[in-house]
Amino acid sequence: MNIVFGNRNSVEEVEEGDKLQPKFDEKGLIPAITVDMSSKEILMHGYMNKEALKLSIETKNAHYWSRSRQSIWKKGEKSGLQQKIKKIRIDDDQDCIIIFVELEGLKASCHVGYKSCFYRELKSINSKFSDKLVFIEKEKVFDPEEVYGDTPNPTKL
Amino acid sequence: MNIVFGNRNSVEEVEEGDKLQPKFDEKGLIPAITVDMSSKEILMHGYMNKEALKLSIETKNAHYWSRSRQSIWKKGEKSGLQQKIKKIRIDDDQDCIIIFVELEGLKASCHVGYKSCFYRELKSINSKFSDKLVFIEKEKVFDPEEVYGDTPNPTKL
Repeated sequence: MNIVFGNRNSVEEVEEGDKLQPKFDEKGLIPAITVDMSSKEILMHGYMNKEALKLSIETKNAHYWSRSRQSIWKKGEKSGLQQKIKKIRIDDDQDCIIIFVELEGLKASCHVGYKSCFYRELKSINSKFSDKLVFIEKEKVFDPEEVYGDTPNPTKL
Repeated sequence: MNIVFGNRNSVEEVEEGDKLQPKFDEKGLIPAITVDMSSKEILMHGYMNKEALKLSIETKNAHYWSRSRQSIWKKGEKSGLQQKIKKIRIDDDQDCIIIFVELEGLKASCHVGYKSCFYRELKSINSKFSDKLVFIEKEKVFDPEEVYGDTPNPTKL
């Protein structure tokens, strides 16, 4: 099936229509939230360019745009942490998508070794949020050195 | 409690430490995913600047940065669709947050009238994704004209 990203002709059509009319930002990217299909847990927040979104839709394998490497990134190609896409949702103004995925391989998505990238939350002290973080995943699923070897770390300061 | 956004000194500390060291992009923004605390449904994808993140943490009322109005936006101030923050998570490289919220007022979050901004998904045809959208919320929770009146629509083409 040939996937066409429609032109954005009117606000009404973008918000209430049945045509896929995604908006890419000034860098050509759209944010993508990745959700575990079975647990509904948010696994990642990444970005796709037009090609990555098209590949994701057509192949059902999650593809992103790597901002650190400036290239298309087929999730799991090196690490084995593939994501099989089951559902794709888009928001009101079509500038953000959610992909619901099944995890393959090690059943994890985060390059640090955790299942989800969101493995920490703000600690509450006396019913108020603090600026201290606590780990909500107690153990890593895998050893990132074993999986990624000497691949450069994508985290930038 | 005085909330301090720590300096980002090392990748190890950012990824594995217990200090809140959020990264704001070149526009001074960090993406924020808003999740319904009870259903775990994703309601919105917005942005916060430093002030909005600080206000969100300190007051527990969701504050965003409105890119269309270029101003701080206390969610629900005009519409009554307030969001009370219960948990805040941050990702590995601390450049994205999730807020888990309880909805007040009309129990909806989307300016188009739906509960979630993600009220459409890609239609599947013969087990393949198409570029047609189907509505997964069948009815609007509220009439946006009644709630927003003649406030300009934030959706941009």
